[in-house]
Amino acid sequence: MNLRLILYIIGQIMRVEGLLMLLPFACSLIYREDSWYALLIPIALLLIIGSLLTLRRPVQRDRMGVRDGLFVVGASWVVLSLFGMLPFILCGAIPHPVDAFFETVSGFTTTGATVLGEVVGTLPEDLDRGIALWRSLTHWIGGMGVLVFVLAVMPQQQFKSARLMHAMRAEVPGPTATKVVATIRRSAAIMYAIYVGLTLLEIVFLLFGGMSLFDAVLHTFSTAGTGGFSNMNASIGAFDSSYIHWVITVFMLIFAVNFNLYYLILIGHVSQALMSEELRWFGIVVGASTAIITLNILPQSESFSIALRDASFTVASFISTTGFTTVTYDAWPQLSQAILVLLMFIGGCAGSTCGGLKISRLIILIKSSFRELRFTLRPREVRAVRVEGKPVDDDTVRGVQAYFSIFMVIFTLSTVLLMLLNKSDLITSFTAVASCLNNVGPGLGEIGILGGGSFGGFTVASKLLLSFDMLLGRLELFPILILFLPSAWSKK
Amino acid sequence: MNLRLILYIIGQIMRVEGLLMLLPFACSLIYREDSWYALLIPIALLLIIGSLLTLRRPVQRDRMGVRDGLFVVGASWVVLSLFGMLPFILCGAIPHPVDAFFETVSGFTTTGATVLGEVVGTLPEDLDRGIALWRSLTHWIGGMGVLVFVLAVMPQQQFKSARLMHAMRAEVPGPTATKVVATIRRSAAIMYAIYVGLTLLEIVFLLFGGMSLFDAVLHTFSTAGTGGFSNMNASIGAFDSSYIHWVITVFMLIFAVNFNLYYLILIGHVSQALMSEELRWFGIVVGASTAIITLNILPQSESFSIALRDASFTVASFISTTGFTTVTYDAWPQLSQAILVLLMFIGGCAGSTCGGLKISRLIILIKSSFRELRFTLRPREVRAVRVEGKPVDDDTVRGVQAYFSIFMVIFTLSTVLLMLLNKSDLITSFTAVASCLNNVGPGLGEIGILGGGSFGGFTVASKLLLSFDMLLGRLELFPILILFLPSAWSKK
Repeated sequence: MNLRLILYIIGQIMRVEGLLMLLPFACSLIYREDSWYALLIPIALLLIIGSLLTLRRPVQRDRMGVRDGLFVVGASWVVLSLFGMLPFILCGAIPHPVDAFFETVSGFTTTGATVLGEVVGTLPEDLDRGIALWRSLTHWIGGMGVLVFVLAVMPQQQFKSARLMHAMRAEVPGPTATKVVATIRRSAAIMYAIYVGLTLLEIVFLLFGGMSLFDAVLHTFSTAGTGGFSNMNASIGAFDSSYIHWVITVFMLIFAVNFNLYYLILIGHVSQALMSEELRWFGIVVGASTAIITLNILPQSESFSIALRDASFTVASFISTTGFTTVTYDAWPQLSQAILVLLMFIGGCAGSTCGGLKISRLIILIKSSFRELRFTLRPREVRAVRVEGKPVDDDTVRGVQAYFSIFMVIFTLSTVLLMLLNKSDLITSFTAVASCLNNVGPGLGEIGILGGGSFGGFTVASKLLLSFDMLLGRLELFPILILFLPSAWSKK
Repeated sequence: MNLRLILYIIGQIMRVEGLLMLLPFACSLIYREDSWYALLIPIALLLIIGSLLTLRRPVQRDRMGVRDGLFVVGASWVVLSLFGMLPFILCGAIPHPVDAFFETVSGFTTTGATVLGEVVGTLPEDLDRGIALWRSLTHWIGGMGVLVFVLAVMPQQQFKSARLMHAMRAEVPGPTATKVVATIRRSAAIMYAIYVGLTLLEIVFLLFGGMSLFDAVLHTFSTAGTGGFSNMNASIGAFDSSYIHWVITVFMLIFAVNFNLYYLILIGHVSQALMSEELRWFGIVVGASTAIITLNILPQSESFSIALRDASFTVASFISTTGFTTVTYDAWPQLSQAILVLLMFIGGCAGSTCGGLKISRLIILIKSSFRELRFTLRPREVRAVRVEGKPVDDDTVRGVQAYFSIFMVIFTLSTVLLMLLNKSDLITSFTAVASCLNNVGPGLGEIGILGGGSFGGFTVASKLLLSFDMLLGRLELFPILILFLPSAWSKK
């Protein structure tokens, strides 16, 4: 382990977090809120400790190995959360440290599961604006990941492209991290530019719908990171405007698509972007789910257009793993509820801000399974699995299959463990783990709309387990799990 | 397709089925039951049609290709069920053909899911003894599979060892079919001898417990095939004897162990048998589940020994995918119920009569996933996955991973489809598919003890879907799914 290099990177990440926290602090000052100090203290801590850690600059011979890279990814997300939870504790809104940690991990991992709600007596609308804005800003920060940003802007020699690629692979969702242009630095810069651009666009669209600037910025942050925190307990349902529902539906889907496609569109390769196999399957899943649910809920809806609006919104919210809600979807027929649970696991496209297994991973999984069927029939005619017209190498296929197996094992163990730790019923436990591991937010049973929609009543041990699951889901298992391998710590 | 060869094999299988049906027919005559003709007619049909089909003997140049082999497996199980359902229809107990088909597929696939129950008005105890015995005999026949038997005893030259191995691989549960001795024929003969021996042993043990000969034979057939049909609606719960509960618990576990181990014990290699990695994990899962459930149900049990007895019985019943019941397990705490659902998916050992994913398949899945984790860390140090001390070849690993992926896809699609076709709730649908695909029998919700435990109220389309799932589960997906590949039917 190269401690000097690791501490330096973590210091840089802390400084970035401190600087980003200035935005909600400014908001707090503008609205003259009493809780300004709850943001100022963490800002001061982050900038001071961060600067101290970056005093010892890495030298020419410091190199980042694979293990160091994975450790930095895991450690930086935990550090981000440990400092990011301070505003919630200091302002008194979420006094218990484990609750505040859960809420912040839920923020950075873009899950959107909350401890606030009628169960605990504190609603999201009780938060001061500065604090509420920080809560949604964690989604925006977590959506793209801060480590890639830090590494990309660092001028040091230590980070060769291959090393950067490792870190990026760990932070960017999906089975493969693709570079849009030759250098990683420029790729990262383009991605962040697209991210900021789309964010501004959504704010403008929401302002047109009559939202206040504060609400528009806050909900855009939550949409962009596909997170789901709102400053209303009724989530987007608090806004009685079909326009706003539709705008957010469209933007949830936009942020669920591979950002590389937007780059292709920007440089004029529109047809290449639209030909994407992953995009096509994403469209098919969204379209089919929306159609089935619309028909399924029609009898209990006021009109077809309202059924379509609600079905579209909820499908977009679940498949993009955002977790915004407008209706009591848990009062829908069981078929619709089952489809929503399924969408949680599917998730959006690789290279987006989504959670879930990702469409491209499922394409590889299904195609490689078909290949095995054909292999049984004609062993001599085995061909490579092709995705987006290109053969997928065997390492990637094996990695995707292992990912799926490990995911299901962790999902199953977490569900049983949660039942043990929280004594909640099967549906609540099952969907709570599905929701956290896939970074969605809401669920069914106690964490459905009818059940109050809050994780506040869960036991301390359950909240720690689910925080771990959220981190596993956001960083796609491997960077966290590898740290538990004994061989990761052997000298050899 | 070599039609002459396929028809000949199917003819042989029909003759075997006809001969086996003589046993329940004899029982019917002994008890002077009116329904003797319901068994005699199918026997006559099977023997006559079977003999006609075997008139055209295959000639020297007829060879069985992989596709033919798979087709024979799928077709023979469907033919067995289509004729095997006739007694139920003819005696009037299950008049609807789809119900009778479901019941018979459930029998041969050793599932034990029944359409009988209070929901439909006909209970298992209403069946004539001959019919009830045939119902349990289907479990016994399906447990080991009839095709391997037919191929093993056929003197024809056409079936080289490699071909036989293909058929055996399709019918014997588990990721790999291992031969205990050099020739397949002798292997098969030894397996059947062990099967018959253990069956006789259980009958003797049950007679000692005061069971009638009829009940002992019937329940032994159901235990041996890990099926679960009883002639009592209360299943084994109808027998108020801890001795009987414990004997059946032990035998359910015995039939869930790889039969190769019994051969090793028979030839004196006891320590080698007990060192089996699969057996060790099977023991750990059974032990841990029993311990957790015993503690979990202790507060609602009369005494510790009764809690232990009920937990042991139910764990053995679910992991061996038998599906016998003694208590209302669906009134147990949700944690215990979740563990039971999990056990359904795990299943017993390869080379047994169990359903489920099988322990050895899960060992390969988890070990190969760990290998991928290590691969990320140190790509140059990849080692083969080792099971039972021997390296597993890559084709098997890939096959197991594909099996798991396809299994989960089919499981998910079936659950959603069942909700659509049957309009049942999520828990009922989820456990109905889990129960049928893993060949277990009971479930939760409507198909739990409290819900009546019968599939009789399901819609016709649901019963056909679940019959298909039972066949997929018993034949381990590939032989059935390959028949749906377009390339299986291309001339090339």
